[in-house]
Amino acid sequence: MSLDCCLLFAGKKNKLYDHFCRHEIVGQVTKVGLNVKKFKVGDVAGVGCMMGSCGSCENCKQDLENYCPKMLWTFSGQYEDGTRAFGGYSNKFVVEEHFAVRIPNDIPLAGVAPLLCAGITVYSPLKYFGLVPQPGSKKHLGVVGLGGVGHMAVKFAKAFGAKVTVISSSPSKEKEAVEQLGADSFLISHDHEKLEAALGTMDGIIDTVSASHSLLPLIGLLKTSGKLVLVGAPVEPPELPVFPLIMGRKVIAGSAIGGMKETQEMIDFAAKHNIIADVEVIPMDYVNTALERLEKGDNVKYRFVIDVANTIKCAN
Amino acid sequence: MSLDCCLLFAGKKNKLYDHFCRHEIVGQVTKVGLNVKKFKVGDVAGVGCMMGSCGSCENCKQDLENYCPKMLWTFSGQYEDGTRAFGGYSNKFVVEEHFAVRIPNDIPLAGVAPLLCAGITVYSPLKYFGLVPQPGSKKHLGVVGLGGVGHMAVKFAKAFGAKVTVISSSPSKEKEAVEQLGADSFLISHDHEKLEAALGTMDGIIDTVSASHSLLPLIGLLKTSGKLVLVGAPVEPPELPVFPLIMGRKVIAGSAIGGMKETQEMIDFAAKHNIIADVEVIPMDYVNTALERLEKGDNVKYRFVIDVANTIKCAN
Repeated sequence: MSLDCCLLFAGKKNKLYDHFCRHEIVGQVTKVGLNVKKFKVGDVAGVGCMMGSCGSCENCKQDLENYCPKMLWTFSGQYEDGTRAFGGYSNKFVVEEHFAVRIPNDIPLAGVAPLLCAGITVYSPLKYFGLVPQPGSKKHLGVVGLGGVGHMAVKFAKAFGAKVTVISSSPSKEKEAVEQLGADSFLISHDHEKLEAALGTMDGIIDTVSASHSLLPLIGLLKTSGKLVLVGAPVEPPELPVFPLIMGRKVIAGSAIGGMKETQEMIDFAAKHNIIADVEVIPMDYVNTALERLEKGDNVKYRFVIDVANTIKCAN
Repeated sequence: MSLDCCLLFAGKKNKLYDHFCRHEIVGQVTKVGLNVKKFKVGDVAGVGCMMGSCGSCENCKQDLENYCPKMLWTFSGQYEDGTRAFGGYSNKFVVEEHFAVRIPNDIPLAGVAPLLCAGITVYSPLKYFGLVPQPGSKKHLGVVGLGGVGHMAVKFAKAFGAKVTVISSSPSKEKEAVEQLGADSFLISHDHEKLEAALGTMDGIIDTVSASHSLLPLIGLLKTSGKLVLVGAPVEPPELPVFPLIMGRKVIAGSAIGGMKETQEMIDFAAKHNIIADVEVIPMDYVNTALERLEKGDNVKYRFVIDVANTIKCAN
């Protein structure tokens, strides 16, 4: 890959963040190609899930590179020579400027990194599916699951001015949902009485849970014409309750990250509204322990971010 | 029910049409209440699936009486005194004028009756889900199933200017789909080669089939952001293929008939574009035979319409 329209970045003073998705990277630009216009050496840049696309299909033409059939993943994407990209595990990363976003200097980098996947994963459907309150109107949104993606959904939905209800199977998460993240209310997914009381009250729901769960109660929570947006994919396909969809003109949709233009828009919105992810920064040699903690569900709030070059104390 | 704001109608010269849904009725107004403004004696009126709603909920306020929790069905809806409505099996029908639509005089009544359920069932989602081509743009729509509802979907979609592909499990329906109904192409739902060739080509699909079937191939036919609208409800909930939804920002939605305002709009559009249903008119004493033919799937094209008063030869 030529550096003519690419940039090389390795983190602020050699620091490079990533989390376990391996495709939420921020760092400092260390070199730019001749035709790079968006960045100069020293700028802070971010790369999310994708680092390439065909550039000419209908999706790419509509700034939806994320749905391009030839989209190239930042982690494990295959280069033309057959090698695989290391994504956020790299200590230096070369990318076309189109697939890097500008990161404002004044927000904490470790908390910005997860915006590049978890953030855009919720920002894009909130916008696209009309779930953002317009001036003079209100929206009541549900967020299912309070993990890396779910807590971003709460933050963005609140910043958009929506009323937010977190729906979770863990009663222990109520306090953090309401007190720390600012959710307006909390529903335990097996509390049938409270679910019943909330029937037909939500304009939309962002469902971030990839473990198997029934969609029927969630559809019940939606108003007429409400939208349930799935951003987590269970391995076993759930049952689709068709009749409840029909009897309320309800929608079940999927959504995957966002295009580069919208990702930049999301970063700018996040900077303006002081939205960052809640993260636990770890050195590279903690990775195995961190993976074990993730498997055990051991109180990870909400993303591990790897300080690849182990220089975080120098910079923050 | 007072006749102050109601009208009584019994068909043109005592003729009243219905089909086996028992809620697609047209006939001539024989009496009007004092405050009725929309009709006068002698007008032709139609009543669809509903004959009442609360009038004050959010749905009713938005002309979506069809999603009112207190919506009253034309057939088997319960009156305040506990009796049940006979719908299209009645020889006279009393209804509030709000729930009757004006039927132009110059279209064949037997073919108009099914518009009141089958017609609005497809017209409403085509409009609401943005599947109608706008000036200068094209839409490619799929219609799954070629029965009473499906053939209306083809007619309305063609009248809207869309390219239409019928998807059916019956190869024998190709000729009628293309030659009689004007569909642009025909896909057999088990012809994997042709399905493969059509992947990612459709903006939307109206799925009218209530027999169990897989949604996965249909989702595959949609473009990015395409919409699969279910208007038939299988008894067994189908599997929801979540990952294909996510990877194309696709939508599965349900839709049930339409509000009264939109039903009138649909009738007016149908009259302007000469859209009527293809029907087989039968006398009341043929009902049992007709039911047997429906059960056997015996070449019913596409709706039986009962000439309740057995006067059809007098009028048409």
